[in-house]
Amino acid sequence: MVDYVKELKSLLAEDRVTINQTILEQHSRDESYHTPRLPDVVAFPENKEEVSALLKFANEQEIPVVPFGLGTSLEGNAIPYSGGISLDMSLMNKVIEVREKDFLVKVQPGVTRTQLNKTLKQYGLFFSVDPGADATLGGMAATNASGTTAVRYGIMRDQVRDLEVVLANGEIIHTGSLATKSSSGLHLNGLFVGSEGTLGVFTELILKVYGIPEEIVAGRASFPTVQQAVSAVNGIMSAGIPIARIELVDARSITQVNTYMNKSYEEKPTLFLEFHGNAAGLAQDVEFAKDIVRDFGCENITFETDSIARNELWEARHKLAYALIHSSPGKKLMSTDVSVPLHELSEAILNTREKIDLSKVEGAIAGHVGDGNYHVLFMLDLTDPIEVAEAMRLNAEIVDYALSRGGTCTGEHGVGIGKRIYQRREHGNAYDVMVSIKQVLDPKGILNPGKIFLDETE
Amino acid sequence: MVDYVKELKSLLAEDRVTINQTILEQHSRDESYHTPRLPDVVAFPENKEEVSALLKFANEQEIPVVPFGLGTSLEGNAIPYSGGISLDMSLMNKVIEVREKDFLVKVQPGVTRTQLNKTLKQYGLFFSVDPGADATLGGMAATNASGTTAVRYGIMRDQVRDLEVVLANGEIIHTGSLATKSSSGLHLNGLFVGSEGTLGVFTELILKVYGIPEEIVAGRASFPTVQQAVSAVNGIMSAGIPIARIELVDARSITQVNTYMNKSYEEKPTLFLEFHGNAAGLAQDVEFAKDIVRDFGCENITFETDSIARNELWEARHKLAYALIHSSPGKKLMSTDVSVPLHELSEAILNTREKIDLSKVEGAIAGHVGDGNYHVLFMLDLTDPIEVAEAMRLNAEIVDYALSRGGTCTGEHGVGIGKRIYQRREHGNAYDVMVSIKQVLDPKGILNPGKIFLDETE
Repeated sequence: MVDYVKELKSLLAEDRVTINQTILEQHSRDESYHTPRLPDVVAFPENKEEVSALLKFANEQEIPVVPFGLGTSLEGNAIPYSGGISLDMSLMNKVIEVREKDFLVKVQPGVTRTQLNKTLKQYGLFFSVDPGADATLGGMAATNASGTTAVRYGIMRDQVRDLEVVLANGEIIHTGSLATKSSSGLHLNGLFVGSEGTLGVFTELILKVYGIPEEIVAGRASFPTVQQAVSAVNGIMSAGIPIARIELVDARSITQVNTYMNKSYEEKPTLFLEFHGNAAGLAQDVEFAKDIVRDFGCENITFETDSIARNELWEARHKLAYALIHSSPGKKLMSTDVSVPLHELSEAILNTREKIDLSKVEGAIAGHVGDGNYHVLFMLDLTDPIEVAEAMRLNAEIVDYALSRGGTCTGEHGVGIGKRIYQRREHGNAYDVMVSIKQVLDPKGILNPGKIFLDETE
Repeated sequence: MVDYVKELKSLLAEDRVTINQTILEQHSRDESYHTPRLPDVVAFPENKEEVSALLKFANEQEIPVVPFGLGTSLEGNAIPYSGGISLDMSLMNKVIEVREKDFLVKVQPGVTRTQLNKTLKQYGLFFSVDPGADATLGGMAATNASGTTAVRYGIMRDQVRDLEVVLANGEIIHTGSLATKSSSGLHLNGLFVGSEGTLGVFTELILKVYGIPEEIVAGRASFPTVQQAVSAVNGIMSAGIPIARIELVDARSITQVNTYMNKSYEEKPTLFLEFHGNAAGLAQDVEFAKDIVRDFGCENITFETDSIARNELWEARHKLAYALIHSSPGKKLMSTDVSVPLHELSEAILNTREKIDLSKVEGAIAGHVGDGNYHVLFMLDLTDPIEVAEAMRLNAEIVDYALSRGGTCTGEHGVGIGKRIYQRREHGNAYDVMVSIKQVLDPKGILNPGKIFLDETE
């Protein structure tokens, strides 16, 4: 047992600091293939004062602190590889205030997005970011999460108006205000969003929310080729049709869904679409979108307005990761995540599919194609070194390809441990600027050490 | 003559480094009331290598460098109060590449927004940010400009995908990539946008552009009271109607336009609206908006689709600053700029109007009301100390009020010299974080010294 548990208990409370083995194990991993590592202790703060006192103590003692939401990250972002304290924010899970006339909500970091949306619904509002997993909003801000709706409403960074952040030395700052926009001072909101716990711990968030659209229409369209599907996306976006979601699943991945879920979806590159707006506008948007997808060779297109029918229509997309995970017991998910310029996307996806088909592993491809962002999902038997090595090689090649096209090594999963080795290559000497900011804000390196940035010894 | 002119000429070219008095004077001021100050020398670089060589030299010699676009700033942002080099970017004015299928454009910092839009039009694209002035894109990024379209398309920071930046020591970095979104590394794009030349000099920008909407409808609606006008804005936004612009001009300001321009617009609080979309959707949006504004007491509403009629409809808004400036020869503009949470806006505007009416100066109020952002425009006789003192007092009171409501001291004009004294109050100890980032990136303080941050001696 580490010798500072007693001090932590005096700073928080006897029953909110634990070395219980089961709880340590729950905080040793995320939803990815990355190797688990136990924290030395798990602490459950209830307010910012406790977080501040704990960080002040940890900073003095040089103890690593790793903020933890629900562990839904995919790049080892919250795994405590240097041990220390896993700071579990789940008790700070209150929706503090809905300022409906300001289109703002103030939440604690442990609130999940579905919990928030349940609260917002009674005000006719919704929170737009949907990364799939029911992650905490603190975790989503830390990773700069996004997902299927980013093409219309933006990413997590676009929703954050203010963060209450406890810095490494225990100081508490606010990075923004209640104003919709500001040109006052340096943009700390944007800097702290996506910092993955390496610059500070979030204890409160003010987020932008939206009026629930009058009507939602969902669609599914299949194409002979990936190129045609992606060209259709470009056509829709060039036409200025305000698409709310536009997702691509490639043919081989539809086959995987059919196999795993005993379905018979058409095994072709398929676009899943969603439109938000008023009835008249949507009717025209949908007609226009139909014309465009047909111009690009679409052979089969269906639209639905009713919410149950919409969900059925989207099932093959919604259930893709689920189908893979729940049909692969004992295997672990490696989901790589890159983003390329829009017109590079079809080439990138084809190149990726070719590489997977030539390899010894199976991989599904799904893309937030309106953002040029796509994922490859591998289910890995971690005891099979050949399978793991193959997937690692493919991951590296997919990232290499994205970077060679002016893209990024991660569109939304964050760097964590998995994408650190690409930081210097992607950012060049801007990486040194990032390191210098990290050093000035966390000089002892206690905050989520080894994430985003390589340790000096690595 | 400062002793380093010869060195600068050897780094750039004989004819692109000047101490010509007229040119020094052109670089001594912006469009505001702030006191001019001559630079020691003006340099006109043609490429990043020259900017890098110049900064490296200036950093070694500890010579201040102030980047200069077109001098359209409103808070003294580009006035060289410590002398040194005014770095005029106007020769770097090429649209380098239109990547129409990526909805991206690569430009040099001296390109103006109307120049860019002229180029984009032939691709069916447009650049969304419209701050009124035909500013350079480098300057707009440096100030995080926005304007009337921010409510729909976002502010300058939302459009920037990558900046090529020369740091104080002459190093060149890229802050982003061509990817639409990224969670890779710390968000340097956001940090450098709005840094007002205090962290680096931009030599290239990659910006997001949009498809020109199928149809544009403009509207004008007058109300008995400011509260009703602002409540109508809230109603429109709550209904999820995707408004592209929504501007308020208060009654007294319409009177000023009528007086100065010999017009007879109805002298009531007036909303100016614009909708972008498809014909069917706009028809429904406009009908819905009409219902809402009538619910809030609107007495007079007009809509136009044709571009000439649209411009006429908006004239009283477009010409407000123009009417003031061109009817006040010898006077200088003080335009203060605050942003408050949306539902605080009507109260804030009424409070401001009351303060102005009780004072000895005249002020016009115009607001980007969808963002909670409004401006007060004073025309000042700078030789009249009472008038200046009155306007300064009102400016301070307007900012105080905005900050007391959780707002910001500047929504879009930036801090420059005019809003520095509010930085500590608005940001609390987050201001120290900003200062530490400034110090680590510009340890000798050569980059636009005295802007955003108070000098240590102040």
